[in-house]
Amino acid sequence: MYQLATLISRSFSEYHRVGIVARRFRRCPRRLFSHRSSTAFPAVEECGTEEPSERVAGDNVGLLAAGGIDLSYPAYTIWGSNTGVGKTLLSAGLVGSILSSGIERSRDVLYLKPVQTGFPKDSDARFVYREVSSMLRSNSNGLVNNVYISKQTVKASPAVHKAVRSKDAAGMEVIGTYEELILEGSRRPNFFINSDERLTASSRERHQGGSASERISQLMCRTLLAWFDPVSPHYAAEMEGTVVEDSDVIQSILSSLKTCTRNNLLQRSPLKAGEQNESEKWAIVETAGGVASPGPSGTLQCDLYRPLRLPCVLMGDGRLGGISSTISAYETLHLRGYDVEAVVLLDAGLANEMFLEKYLQGRTPVFVLPPVPEDTSESLSNWFIQSQHCFSRLRCTLEEANMRRLQRLQEMPSKAEQILWWPFTQHTMVPTGDVTVIDSRCAENFSVFKNTDGGKLEPQFDACASWWTQGPDSRLQPELAKAAGYAAGRYGHVMFPENVHEPALRCAELLLELMGKGWGNRVYFSDNGSTAVEIALKMAFRKFVTDHKTFLGSAATSSDLESQRSLKVLALNGSYHGDTLGAMEAQAPSPYTGFLQQPWYSGRGLFLDSPKVYLRNGQWQLQCPHSLLRDSCTEAYDADTMFESRADVFSSVRDHTPWADICRAYVRRQLQVHETSGDRSVIGALIIEPVIHGAGGMDMVDPLFQRILVSECRLRNIPVIFDEILAGCWRLGVKSTSELLHCYPDIACYSKLLTGGTVPLAATIATEEIFEAFKGQSKLDALLHGHSYTAHAMGCATAVATLQHFSDPVKNSNLTTDGRLQELWCPELVSAISCHTSVRRVVSLGTLFACELEDKESGYTSTSTKGLIQMLRADGIYTRPLGNVVYLMCGPLTSPASCTSLLEVLLRNLDQMV
Amino acid sequence: MYQLATLISRSFSEYHRVGIVARRFRRCPRRLFSHRSSTAFPAVEECGTEEPSERVAGDNVGLLAAGGIDLSYPAYTIWGSNTGVGKTLLSAGLVGSILSSGIERSRDVLYLKPVQTGFPKDSDARFVYREVSSMLRSNSNGLVNNVYISKQTVKASPAVHKAVRSKDAAGMEVIGTYEELILEGSRRPNFFINSDERLTASSRERHQGGSASERISQLMCRTLLAWFDPVSPHYAAEMEGTVVEDSDVIQSILSSLKTCTRNNLLQRSPLKAGEQNESEKWAIVETAGGVASPGPSGTLQCDLYRPLRLPCVLMGDGRLGGISSTISAYETLHLRGYDVEAVVLLDAGLANEMFLEKYLQGRTPVFVLPPVPEDTSESLSNWFIQSQHCFSRLRCTLEEANMRRLQRLQEMPSKAEQILWWPFTQHTMVPTGDVTVIDSRCAENFSVFKNTDGGKLEPQFDACASWWTQGPDSRLQPELAKAAGYAAGRYGHVMFPENVHEPALRCAELLLELMGKGWGNRVYFSDNGSTAVEIALKMAFRKFVTDHKTFLGSAATSSDLESQRSLKVLALNGSYHGDTLGAMEAQAPSPYTGFLQQPWYSGRGLFLDSPKVYLRNGQWQLQCPHSLLRDSCTEAYDADTMFESRADVFSSVRDHTPWADICRAYVRRQLQVHETSGDRSVIGALIIEPVIHGAGGMDMVDPLFQRILVSECRLRNIPVIFDEILAGCWRLGVKSTSELLHCYPDIACYSKLLTGGTVPLAATIATEEIFEAFKGQSKLDALLHGHSYTAHAMGCATAVATLQHFSDPVKNSNLTTDGRLQELWCPELVSAISCHTSVRRVVSLGTLFACELEDKESGYTSTSTKGLIQMLRADGIYTRPLGNVVYLMCGPLTSPASCTSLLEVLLRNLDQMV
Repeated sequence: MYQLATLISRSFSEYHRVGIVARRFRRCPRRLFSHRSSTAFPAVEECGTEEPSERVAGDNVGLLAAGGIDLSYPAYTIWGSNTGVGKTLLSAGLVGSILSSGIERSRDVLYLKPVQTGFPKDSDARFVYREVSSMLRSNSNGLVNNVYISKQTVKASPAVHKAVRSKDAAGMEVIGTYEELILEGSRRPNFFINSDERLTASSRERHQGGSASERISQLMCRTLLAWFDPVSPHYAAEMEGTVVEDSDVIQSILSSLKTCTRNNLLQRSPLKAGEQNESEKWAIVETAGGVASPGPSGTLQCDLYRPLRLPCVLMGDGRLGGISSTISAYETLHLRGYDVEAVVLLDAGLANEMFLEKYLQGRTPVFVLPPVPEDTSESLSNWFIQSQHCFSRLRCTLEEANMRRLQRLQEMPSKAEQILWWPFTQHTMVPTGDVTVIDSRCAENFSVFKNTDGGKLEPQFDACASWWTQGPDSRLQPELAKAAGYAAGRYGHVMFPENVHEPALRCAELLLELMGKGWGNRVYFSDNGSTAVEIALKMAFRKFVTDHKTFLGSAATSSDLESQRSLKVLALNGSYHGDTLGAMEAQAPSPYTGFLQQPWYSGRGLFLDSPKVYLRNGQWQLQCPHSLLRDSCTEAYDADTMFESRADVFSSVRDHTPWADICRAYVRRQLQVHETSGDRSVIGALIIEPVIHGAGGMDMVDPLFQRILVSECRLRNIPVIFDEILAGCWRLGVKSTSELLHCYPDIACYSKLLTGGTVPLAATIATEEIFEAFKGQSKLDALLHGHSYTAHAMGCATAVATLQHFSDPVKNSNLTTDGRLQELWCPELVSAISCHTSVRRVVSLGTLFACELEDKESGYTSTSTKGLIQMLRADGIYTRPLGNVVYLMCGPLTSPASCTSLLEVLLRNLDQMV
Repeated sequence: MYQLATLISRSFSEYHRVGIVARRFRRCPRRLFSHRSSTAFPAVEECGTEEPSERVAGDNVGLLAAGGIDLSYPAYTIWGSNTGVGKTLLSAGLVGSILSSGIERSRDVLYLKPVQTGFPKDSDARFVYREVSSMLRSNSNGLVNNVYISKQTVKASPAVHKAVRSKDAAGMEVIGTYEELILEGSRRPNFFINSDERLTASSRERHQGGSASERISQLMCRTLLAWFDPVSPHYAAEMEGTVVEDSDVIQSILSSLKTCTRNNLLQRSPLKAGEQNESEKWAIVETAGGVASPGPSGTLQCDLYRPLRLPCVLMGDGRLGGISSTISAYETLHLRGYDVEAVVLLDAGLANEMFLEKYLQGRTPVFVLPPVPEDTSESLSNWFIQSQHCFSRLRCTLEEANMRRLQRLQEMPSKAEQILWWPFTQHTMVPTGDVTVIDSRCAENFSVFKNTDGGKLEPQFDACASWWTQGPDSRLQPELAKAAGYAAGRYGHVMFPENVHEPALRCAELLLELMGKGWGNRVYFSDNGSTAVEIALKMAFRKFVTDHKTFLGSAATSSDLESQRSLKVLALNGSYHGDTLGAMEAQAPSPYTGFLQQPWYSGRGLFLDSPKVYLRNGQWQLQCPHSLLRDSCTEAYDADTMFESRADVFSSVRDHTPWADICRAYVRRQLQVHETSGDRSVIGALIIEPVIHGAGGMDMVDPLFQRILVSECRLRNIPVIFDEILAGCWRLGVKSTSELLHCYPDIACYSKLLTGGTVPLAATIATEEIFEAFKGQSKLDALLHGHSYTAHAMGCATAVATLQHFSDPVKNSNLTTDGRLQELWCPELVSAISCHTSVRRVVSLGTLFACELEDKESGYTSTSTKGLIQMLRADGIYTRPLGNVVYLMCGPLTSPASCTSLLEVLLRNLDQMV
């Protein structure tokens, strides 16, 4: 295999020699928006690329290095509803229209063809270069500025090189990598046309010498990657033995856009101070083939270019069948979250535009270009003249759309402040400037609007996983969008009780095969974690009441029970189960449960302290609450406080240690105390967040202790609930924490990651024994709890897609043979952070990395992490603190390399914090 | 404008004369799957159509009349990724393969071209007819049955008629409407080819006379609608002055499929008893142009044929650019909920199939046909021979897919019984046979699987609006799917607190413009009605506590308040606010709140009885609870118990009647009694379901009484919550019930219809005064309640699409100038039902019609409605009872005509019940 080589021709060398192109080989950046490939991508050679900042994280390196995407000028992608519909005509006409739209400003236009096949015979950049220059030359009516036009090809396959170098290749036109034209505008009485002239340094300098008042417009027509075979790029890349990764393409486009932004398209006529703002910039990026044509790596172009999410112009099809292909192409873009700002058609006499105008009314304007003459040898100039008005309207539309977009993004923070009411947010503490405007998400990254330098978009790694819900990579996200769209198209939502539909049934089957394996029999759907927990509690209590009729007195009816004894849960301090009242009652008093927050909260549980496990100074260790050690042998505790490794923490060998006896004794003592306390309540359920107390501060609870809790409840016939809303679905590296605790629940709750991070859905899994407790002859015996969208199709369909994707080793390369995720967080870095002086403890497990900062003021109200959070956000990592705990949460598909970058950035910032 | 006329040619007449085609003009059925058009569609003339049953409802008339969609045999739609990709070649090859796949069974194949333009010059049916016959004739290797092949055109435009009749039209080929061929198969030594022979009755009889052992296969190639101009059907229809509604097209296809099903394709060789099951049936429906090409009415074909949701074969494109157009077309079908079971390509040497195979792996198999020879004059036979193997595999794939689908549908009820746990369902009362398998939804209709006659799909009008969530018509549903897909593609879900994204902001803006108009300032998002209510209660209580510090004693801190006095709501008996504990506490004891259901429920409210309004014997009247009349002037009550009209019930003139005084006195007395009762609780909020108590039995509460409740609370500075989860978003004909009650709340809750019926989302709107009560210097003062998917993009985006659609008079033809819905329920029918002896009371308002049956056993546990519900379901109306209340709920876009059909069916069934 060859890597793409760089075309070096005489003119290129010359260009280079005079310092026009800053060539630099730089370190290969980490994969941007991971498209997995078995081959590492080769070093990229670029024009005008700066060394990427070291202060950036993970997959964001490219976008951040390029300073994000500049929104201050229109940058559009031209898409085609098919190949051969006239994308390049559109590009040329638009570029021509921009350059000839008056002399009041100079213009910098970048025409970019990232991927070109059939080169050098076919070159869209050359077409634009030639047609625009001829257009401008023939434009004798309007006033135009002087224009520098250049053409450039950055990289090409070996086959292209061969063709270019062998000038005698039969019938093959040989094209230099650079061509330049200087058109002198209307400021001189006659056009000075320097056609086909190879510029020398001296002639260039002559032109640079124009006075400041003489505005000079510029057009660069740049081909980024070129292949010889006139076939689909993926096929050409394969046939010509080249490998280009998606990240290369994105990176190259970003570099080119940045060049454009810096107002030095040709890097030879830097505008003088004060003049800078006058220049009107544009970038036109023309794709190859149709919207879903594969790019060089085989990724569909609509997916390939998605990280940029540039606004689009769709070249539709005016021919027979063109309505269909235009609408389908439109939908393909739309489904990936692109905004199509204009549809353009070549008139083919079928009035397709009339239909499309009506169909797209209120969404996208439609433009019609006159038919292209059959004989295109000489007459395109006339066509461009005929099309002038249409291109001019199109240009205005695109300019306005860009301005509208920018204005909306700019006004969003203050509008948000005015009318939104955020959860868990003290609005007085969020100045308008601090409101984060999220323009979109791509895989793990937000695209965040920054109102600086005229407005730009920057990526931020969503390290809070948007409240622990997120799991997509760049391949799963479009899959989820398609699954959601299909479910919406097929079902919308349909009634569930007494009914069955495919997504609900399949989702239930998968939940039982994966999370419920070995114990679960029934799936109860609801909307979110909180409702899943309320349902779980209702299930557990009913089972308990059914089982304990004798225990409570054989004559006891349910109303006796009600009047005499109330039901409570056994739970752990620091555990959290949701914000609705029923779920809150199952958690210990906390800042969430005060009277002002929840006047009806009373805390219906026996809440125990629990031992915690964490990494500190490179060592996994146990922290035990005092309450647990009372009356116990402290020596036994001491003997068990240090672990060789994290794996030892989860080992069931620990069941037979003295420490296990201490825990068992503690639990028994607490239950006994409660029973004899005079409190008339009965423990009717155990509810735990297995392994990790999430909202409680990312505490790792000793899994042995939780296992003992479960076994003690089993002995007493108390139903056991695992709240796996945070922990399940590979969040902690395993599909279910049963694998970590080595025991099963009777009831378990799932939500958050269940739909991959798209829409709310929750499931409560139960055993058949639990289900039996609701059987009876009356409807009143049934579980009377439901929500309107129970088992809604879109939630179930996205859950099915998610569970299948995560559990498939082909799609999830993090999956090991035992069905767990490989270690994502570099152990050395994790250890290093745990040794940091600012860090009190570290927990890393599955997709979670958390560290608690040394801080006098700990707990939920702590604000000591604020500085660190701000530094991380500036470095492209969006985190949210939990008191003095800072955590990084990736998805089950995130590459270990990305996680390493995150840790590196964190460590660097911790150092800087000290 | 002309209506499409029927081609009558000599052969047609003859055909008719011998009773082959049962022509019958029948009453125009009501619009099927409403595509609105200003012109009523003309009477349809059909072959083999039965009079539609009178026992069907609304838009379902067509599908039900046709006996639903038969799943016992493969019926596929052939779609093209573009025009000219070879759909008809595919059809012909597939049909040929079916007919020549052995002699062990006879075969009945229907090839259907619903829409043909360029006719008679172009006729895909003729192509299939000719090519298949030539294929069979040249198939000298395999054994084949005798085959009857016929070709038929049902209706054509006047322009076609003109062309057909003027046989001398220059260059125009004249085609009779019927052609028949009889191919004698391999059972005779030589093929007997009766090509181009016009059959006479006698020749036909001769062929019918074959022995039973001689299996005869049949192929009918039928064109349903034909236009002369070779352009897009919508354009041809317009140019040729014809009007065809979508329902016509669907109806015609159904009729044809039914003909196929009944095993009497040509209606002349009825198989003998016992032989029936041997025949292998197939139907191939070929669309025109590409997937999104417009049909005759202008509806995209992918939307037009959606009610049938036949499985699909997509003819992709093997040419350059074909990968893109194939994938885009695939996605267009997928987004509308179609299942594409095979993709087929003509080989163009670009290996597109290799890419597509990989891309569609695990979803859809890809087949490649050899290149078609350039010269198609004579050589297609050879091509078909070359393609034989591919078509044979395709046939098997399609057969298997159909079988798999059927098997899955058949097993779903028992699988559902095994692993699902339905809310509000006593599983012992749902035998497997009663489980409804919902295959899909189209607009207001479910497509329900019936395991009879080999399996079929029937429509049922979703008259429970899937727990009151539904609002789509056939135009809104794909819009919502697109909006959801776009939001998923652009955002997935992104973190909300301190952030802003476009769908959330736009949704909040619309909610305030519409529902919050005149009072609302802030929007708080959550997941469902229950959480929206819990949030509303937290808001109200905080505001109350903030306002009443003085009232409660100036020294009182919140902890004093907590220890001394608890907070309660003022609410109405029968009101319902959701199933989570906090929402349940705000409702009066009911079967939902018993100890076995909700052990933690205590009922934290002062629950008042309320007067109800209903229609009985054609008269709107008031029913007053005894508690309200105690100590009051009964005469005043009597004077106000009857209303001239429903409008009078909502008139604010009533504020100044003696009845208003009675209500006011009652409320004041109740509040006073509570204050002096020794109960230490304080009323901290009023919560009502405005106008309609939904789950409580679709009771209409006297709006005057609710207005008085609001004003009395205002006097006492008690915050007012409107729970509009059922009532809002035009469910009751108005965007907000504020318009009906003539007063505003401080807080209001929305969900259900908010997303049009797609995904869960809820919003709690509040005034700025409420919001202010949470401002402070500490995060602990903020409202600490949130759910993972707060303001999720897909929910907000579908809500935006829904609110815009419902409030746009162009899209919502039910909207009147005052922004309300027109009357949907025919007043005469409503009145008639209210006079029925089986009916106790009727309520109709907005999209809701409800009637309570006369029944000794009333309330939630009543089962007296069971019989009526079953009768309605058999008639295509899916209802769920609320005790002895039967209700019909349509959507804000449902046509009054559909509602009338529903009422007619209900009335008929009530008559039959007596």
